[in-house]
Amino acid sequence: MFAEDKLHEECGVFGVYDRDRTLDCARLTYYALYALQHRGQETCGIVTCDGNDFACYKNAGLVPEVFNDFNLNRFTGHMAVGHVSCTGHEDSHKQNSQPLLTRYTGDTMAIANNGGLANHNKLINELAQNGAIFHSDTDAEIIAYLLGWERITNGRMESALSQVMCRLEGAYSLVIMTQDQLIAARDPYGIRPLCIGKIGGAWVFASETAALKAVGAEYQRDVEPGEIVVVSDEGLTSVRDHVGKFKPRPCIFEYIYFARPDSVVGGQSVYEARRLAGMILGRETGVDADIVIGVPDNGLCAAIGYSEASGIPYGIGIVKNRYVGRTFIQPTQLIRQRNVEIKLTAVESCVKGKRVVLVDDSIIRGTTSANLIRLLKEAGATEVHMRVSSPPFLWPCYFGTDIPNKHELAANNLSCDELRKKIGADSLGYLDVEDLKRIVPELDGYCDACFSGDYPRF
Amino acid sequence: MFAEDKLHEECGVFGVYDRDRTLDCARLTYYALYALQHRGQETCGIVTCDGNDFACYKNAGLVPEVFNDFNLNRFTGHMAVGHVSCTGHEDSHKQNSQPLLTRYTGDTMAIANNGGLANHNKLINELAQNGAIFHSDTDAEIIAYLLGWERITNGRMESALSQVMCRLEGAYSLVIMTQDQLIAARDPYGIRPLCIGKIGGAWVFASETAALKAVGAEYQRDVEPGEIVVVSDEGLTSVRDHVGKFKPRPCIFEYIYFARPDSVVGGQSVYEARRLAGMILGRETGVDADIVIGVPDNGLCAAIGYSEASGIPYGIGIVKNRYVGRTFIQPTQLIRQRNVEIKLTAVESCVKGKRVVLVDDSIIRGTTSANLIRLLKEAGATEVHMRVSSPPFLWPCYFGTDIPNKHELAANNLSCDELRKKIGADSLGYLDVEDLKRIVPELDGYCDACFSGDYPRF
Amino acid sequence: MFAEDKLHEECGVFGVYDRDRTLDCARLTYYALYALQHRGQETCGIVTCDGNDFACYKNAGLVPEVFNDFNLNRFTGHMAVGHVSCTGHEDSHKQNSQPLLTRYTGDTMAIANNGGLANHNKLINELAQNGAIFHSDTDAEIIAYLLGWERITNGRMESALSQVMCRLEGAYSLVIMTQDQLIAARDPYGIRPLCIGKIGGAWVFASETAALKAVGAEYQRDVEPGEIVVVSDEGLTSVRDHVGKFKPRPCIFEYIYFARPDSVVGGQSVYEARRLAGMILGRETGVDADIVIGVPDNGLCAAIGYSEASGIPYGIGIVKNRYVGRTFIQPTQLIRQRNVEIKLTAVESCVKGKRVVLVDDSIIRGTTSANLIRLLKEAGATEVHMRVSSPPFLWPCYFGTDIPNKHELAANNLSCDELRKKIGADSLGYLDVEDLKRIVPELDGYCDACFSGDYPRF
Amino acid sequence: MFAEDKLHEECGVFGVYDRDRTLDCARLTYYALYALQHRGQETCGIVTCDGNDFACYKNAGLVPEVFNDFNLNRFTGHMAVGHVSCTGHEDSHKQNSQPLLTRYTGDTMAIANNGGLANHNKLINELAQNGAIFHSDTDAEIIAYLLGWERITNGRMESALSQVMCRLEGAYSLVIMTQDQLIAARDPYGIRPLCIGKIGGAWVFASETAALKAVGAEYQRDVEPGEIVVVSDEGLTSVRDHVGKFKPRPCIFEYIYFARPDSVVGGQSVYEARRLAGMILGRETGVDADIVIGVPDNGLCAAIGYSEASGIPYGIGIVKNRYVGRTFIQPTQLIRQRNVEIKLTAVESCVKGKRVVLVDDSIIRGTTSANLIRLLKEAGATEVHMRVSSPPFLWPCYFGTDIPNKHELAANNLSCDELRKKIGADSLGYLDVEDLKRIVPELDGYCDACFSGDYPRF
Repeated sequence: MFAEDKLHEECGVFGVYDRDRTLDCARLTYYALYALQHRGQETCGIVTCDGNDFACYKNAGLVPEVFNDFNLNRFTGHMAVGHVSCTGHEDSHKQNSQPLLTRYTGDTMAIANNGGLANHNKLINELAQNGAIFHSDTDAEIIAYLLGWERITNGRMESALSQVMCRLEGAYSLVIMTQDQLIAARDPYGIRPLCIGKIGGAWVFASETAALKAVGAEYQRDVEPGEIVVVSDEGLTSVRDHVGKFKPRPCIFEYIYFARPDSVVGGQSVYEARRLAGMILGRETGVDADIVIGVPDNGLCAAIGYSEASGIPYGIGIVKNRYVGRTFIQPTQLIRQRNVEIKLTAVESCVKGKRVVLVDDSIIRGTTSANLIRLLKEAGATEVHMRVSSPPFLWPCYFGTDIPNKHELAANNLSCDELRKKIGADSLGYLDVEDLKRIVPELDGYCDACFSGDYPRF
Repeated sequence: MFAEDKLHEECGVFGVYDRDRTLDCARLTYYALYALQHRGQETCGIVTCDGNDFACYKNAGLVPEVFNDFNLNRFTGHMAVGHVSCTGHEDSHKQNSQPLLTRYTGDTMAIANNGGLANHNKLINELAQNGAIFHSDTDAEIIAYLLGWERITNGRMESALSQVMCRLEGAYSLVIMTQDQLIAARDPYGIRPLCIGKIGGAWVFASETAALKAVGAEYQRDVEPGEIVVVSDEGLTSVRDHVGKFKPRPCIFEYIYFARPDSVVGGQSVYEARRLAGMILGRETGVDADIVIGVPDNGLCAAIGYSEASGIPYGIGIVKNRYVGRTFIQPTQLIRQRNVEIKLTAVESCVKGKRVVLVDDSIIRGTTSANLIRLLKEAGATEVHMRVSSPPFLWPCYFGTDIPNKHELAANNLSCDELRKKIGADSLGYLDVEDLKRIVPELDGYCDACFSGDYPRF
Repeated sequence: MFAEDKLHEECGVFGVYDRDRTLDCARLTYYALYALQHRGQETCGIVTCDGNDFACYKNAGLVPEVFNDFNLNRFTGHMAVGHVSCTGHEDSHKQNSQPLLTRYTGDTMAIANNGGLANHNKLINELAQNGAIFHSDTDAEIIAYLLGWERITNGRMESALSQVMCRLEGAYSLVIMTQDQLIAARDPYGIRPLCIGKIGGAWVFASETAALKAVGAEYQRDVEPGEIVVVSDEGLTSVRDHVGKFKPRPCIFEYIYFARPDSVVGGQSVYEARRLAGMILGRETGVDADIVIGVPDNGLCAAIGYSEASGIPYGIGIVKNRYVGRTFIQPTQLIRQRNVEIKLTAVESCVKGKRVVLVDDSIIRGTTSANLIRLLKEAGATEVHMRVSSPPFLWPCYFGTDIPNKHELAANNLSCDELRKKIGADSLGYLDVEDLKRIVPELDGYCDACFSGDYPRF
Repeated sequence: MFAEDKLHEECGVFGVYDRDRTLDCARLTYYALYALQHRGQETCGIVTCDGNDFACYKNAGLVPEVFNDFNLNRFTGHMAVGHVSCTGHEDSHKQNSQPLLTRYTGDTMAIANNGGLANHNKLINELAQNGAIFHSDTDAEIIAYLLGWERITNGRMESALSQVMCRLEGAYSLVIMTQDQLIAARDPYGIRPLCIGKIGGAWVFASETAALKAVGAEYQRDVEPGEIVVVSDEGLTSVRDHVGKFKPRPCIFEYIYFARPDSVVGGQSVYEARRLAGMILGRETGVDADIVIGVPDNGLCAAIGYSEASGIPYGIGIVKNRYVGRTFIQPTQLIRQRNVEIKLTAVESCVKGKRVVLVDDSIIRGTTSANLIRLLKEAGATEVHMRVSSPPFLWPCYFGTDIPNKHELAANNLSCDELRKKIGADSLGYLDVEDLKRIVPELDGYCDACFSGDYPRF
């Protein structure tokens, strides 16, 4: 069995404001969360508002496990926010689930957030020193407190939010719902994505354009880094106090791994970025081989690019079992010794007797790579050349991903050749850090701190 | 079908501190909550602490629905608090479920509360004006905030709590768990019950003595009105700043309806109180009849007392289906016309051709009484004389019960004879308000505001 | 904790034929099964027929666990049969669940049965020798086979059934549904109950009259021992080939324990039978005591009778927790040592300092009695006199009850005084076998083989 | 939304006999069923035997939904059979679920079958005329009856089975477990697959080699058409009475759609067959285009082959949402109008401005194809050329697939050009029937009746 050896994005957010009161906003949100499920598989939730009352349902589980006709039918309202998350700490699933629904002086608000604050602990301490109590361990609760404070004296949510943003250091893509407004905001670096779409008279916000398509919304534009977008019955307005504060640095890993290939983030196609990464790899880490295969699902686009650039035929050498879900029963030790392989299997007729190029998006601990290479060799591959469509992962991320402890990162502890030996590959090649800019030609800048150590400064 | 026509107690609480670290505290709490299930059927929860980490699980549902071997096994620790509740508002089940687990400056605490604050809204507003945001609609969260504020400057939880109690007006029976203390406290009127028990070296707190018996604990004494009891590895200490502030006024309705008959509350047996109420009724509202029957389960003790005092034989004239639970499917209109009777049925051979005295603990809206009397007459009862083992219910309660809107109270809108006609009884008799003191001879005073309008003052 | 120490009835059956096509037959059956739930808690099922197609749903679990709005809505048809059962063997729950739906030459039938065939194994062997394969271990499947065989040459189901009944030795109360008939039949001894009711133009059959009341049906009469009753669009007809074959011997234990107190079986009120048993006990096993209490729920009626006859006051000395269900988590050894008592608890104020008469319906292994007596003494009872409202249980039953192995029956292994000592009672009294006839004055004869060894002969 | 528009294989089977008694046979079967889940998603079941007792659990649902640690732990034994199925009729899920466990004269057997008998109804009638009653609508029950009959006079299961096979006309791949034998058998045409593997001292049978790999078993050989393979403590023996009776005709659709690409069936790699089909299509239905894409998951291999043969680059133009499962809530009409697309989405940056070749394995009703082509055009594809890696589907299949009614088959009702228009393609090309033999070069013959109408004769 393959130990899970991937980074996790921590969240996906969605919001809808239907001026015309004709949409079933809860159900739209349900379909949008389905489309964002890859961004968080542990908890999900929906909050709706009809201009007066709020309804909330959230729980641990996948979207289709948590929601059903029965609980969806109980939602009403022309506004909704939704959230999927992957909190990492099993015990805290429910405590940390979002959207966070709170009452504060004079109103109620629901907050859904994607990101990570670098000054999380500092803010927690300051707030506690002023009497705050914390029900969760989320940035969303910190932001809710700061907004609550601000609103005591500040009549408008958007200007309160603008004030609060002065104190936040890190990544955040927020959707906030009050009784009469739906507000989206993004940190000045624009680290996590957030886009705007339209369905008839309704405005929607979503982490990825794939969620817009899922609900039949037309993409309008991204929320700009630092921008606050306010939707109400009066239409859409933009608060730009923080726009242009920093040169934008969207997360490069969204393109490499997190986002769906059918999404466009910051004007750059994710599919194209992966294909380009594969093509560059194919040109710069070329090797004599018979077939190029990708690790499903995220290595496939880069493998196709590699094949295209190198002229080596593309094949399906590894198959993923589509039915292995959250409730999969782990094999006992007795069974594990039999090399039971449920999740990923090699296609013998594709790789037997062949020199194989195996493309994956990243190596975290190296365990999955080692298992796959063993499988391929057992299936008759004569050589396996591992190619990684990103640079070595060397630095932790503080902006909303579930990074392993720094010393668990294989590339930190082993030389490239040591790692090659550990995973049993005949050669090992990475994308060069310098080449990252070539995979996102539409972007002006990006955050590659996990590869370069060059973090955004606040 | 019988519309649900009973008051609901809102909560039951439990806590255990095992100095010797030999008990399975989560499982003990599970059994205790089972024994307190009658005090709240909508949500339940357990929080444990091992002196360092807290584990929490709560959900909507009955104790056996929410907890199973799997989630019980994940708890560890030598301390636990548990809670059952009946929040009334279906949508807010989870938001309002307790124990409430929060972090504040420097520590973490879990709070389980039974009661109702008369100054709930006032405190909410004050706190919000100081920056508080509210995740729930519970008194527990208000108390957590006040404690959080207090602890910024106050090094000891028990003295912080003593300060906080100065601001609370109403009923509360609290169990609070921190990393090294288990604290129980009761409002100075002692409106809701809370008792102390011991299992070997472990101290336990529970809403009722029945929960002590359920876990094999020996009853020690009640937490006194206004008392704060602190348990830690140093043993049990008592903070008595608020003891004696008011003349105690425990809720009389605990004896009439809320508590289990096998509990002893404030030194007074609940079973005996109900039997005495029946005896007084029997003597003072006597009628020529052939058989005395009670409405299961809560009218049975009083019916026995009535039979004893009047000399009229006692019988089982109404049977309750033990399998009708929360998930019972309500009959469709088509079926309802057939007079489908699932929950309660009449025993024809007990009542046929007889003049029946029917004893129940209270009449709220009158719908259940009307249905039962119809059933009994259909089964051949020649007369049905309704006797109620409490006075007419006239005033709302602000201290932790789920009262219907004042104008839904039948006794408020109808004269006794009008109500008699509405329910179809041949005669209708109540316990006199003056007689209440005779059913709780062990008590020095009590709150009977729901019958008399004489509320405790703060 | 109390080990389960009761006999189990194995089944309850129900059927409805609505000539007018106006009833929701599946939902009616659902409510009827609720009312029969005490006759079987392990599996339940409903089959409906619209004159053409059959729909079937059955599963392990209580009626409210197995059925919900969703699966009830999928049933259609003007006929239905339902079944609750308690098969005893956990693994075989589903295999043995009824109604049994089978196709045979030319038609489909659904069979629901309550009873036990003494020649079960003989018939199995004969059928297997002729090519039968068995999916279950039920009499229903044997009967289905015999009917299938018979129908090859016999054009009418009722005459085929009459033929088949010649080969059946033992107890059976059958409801059989074909595409155009609903047929009820009872063995010539009439061992298990089966009654006929009417709702407007619809005929219903049920194991007990309580199920008639539950669906608003009016009791018409019992199916006679040996009778076959056929309902179709042509109305109700009776086939009486086997009526009068034997002198009827209905099971006496239905009155003592199995049936609901609000049922009337064979013209005899169950409530009255129990009360009479208590009265006889009170007169014949009199003892100087202060209070009479019953074991809930089945010992209560007899306790009331005992109190009435003896003049000793009746009280509620033992309380049953209404929330302990099938999914109750058993205490671990560690917890068991604490004498955790969840299911049944003593009411101290009722028994303290008193000489108690404890009435139960039967003693099987004696474990429950021993536990209860210990509880009562811990609660302060000075003496506990056990009274059993039936004779000592000495002989196995082959007619549809879940009897323990003969040597597990306490009364078989111990003298009355040894058993008294084992359970810790101060005295122990039984109903005399000869007195059984006095508790069912409306009956002409009955089967008391479990007490007397005098089995019906075939 | 896409209506489901695919054929369904009806079953997958698995069996294991562990001579050494060291394996956890139930868990192995669980992992094997996971690997066979694509062959049936509606019910699944496992039966184990320890040489004496049988344990059985089956239910409606996916393998991970039906089985969990709790029910798996209750299985014991050194033998097991498992089954996944897709019965098609929702109401009959449970009735038809397998393995079928029955007792017959002198023994018990469990049968798991994959296939379809052409003389199903004829055998049903014959058996019913001899007294059989049918609980299900499965071939497995017919075979169980025939075996039961045969075993009355025949001492050995394998020779009884050989006799029974004389009467079976159609496809069957059987695994039968008795108290001391595990028997596998395949119809003389070998229509459905069945292979043999080994894990240490244990023999296993499975529908596909992918299930062998999943449990760490080594592939030995296929069960030959007409062969009966018997495994017991004495080892493996082969009964070859029916081997060579017909020229084998394995189902060609296993290669095109049913089987997993990593399986080898009849010595022929499924992956290779699909790639070859794509290559032939690419050569013979060539078109001027910019990109080749496949419909996930089953059209991907052929699309790769098409790209390889045509030189047109391969891309990922359609993405499948991996989280859409059985419990997916269908959109309401209101939402459907918004063109909500959850299951499959187009990758705009892959297809925009391009002439696209879209490869799928088959067209049944044409609805999925029409939807996908619309999606691709909305995403900017300038042309969409549909290529199908099999011939037009014209004839029903009687051998274990879930075929729609003949007049629902698009190719039967429309000319190729009419169908092209209906689905909105710019051109439409199929694999030629004559080319089928070129995609399975390792095979000597096959059944292509669904394309050619040339059925195997019995």
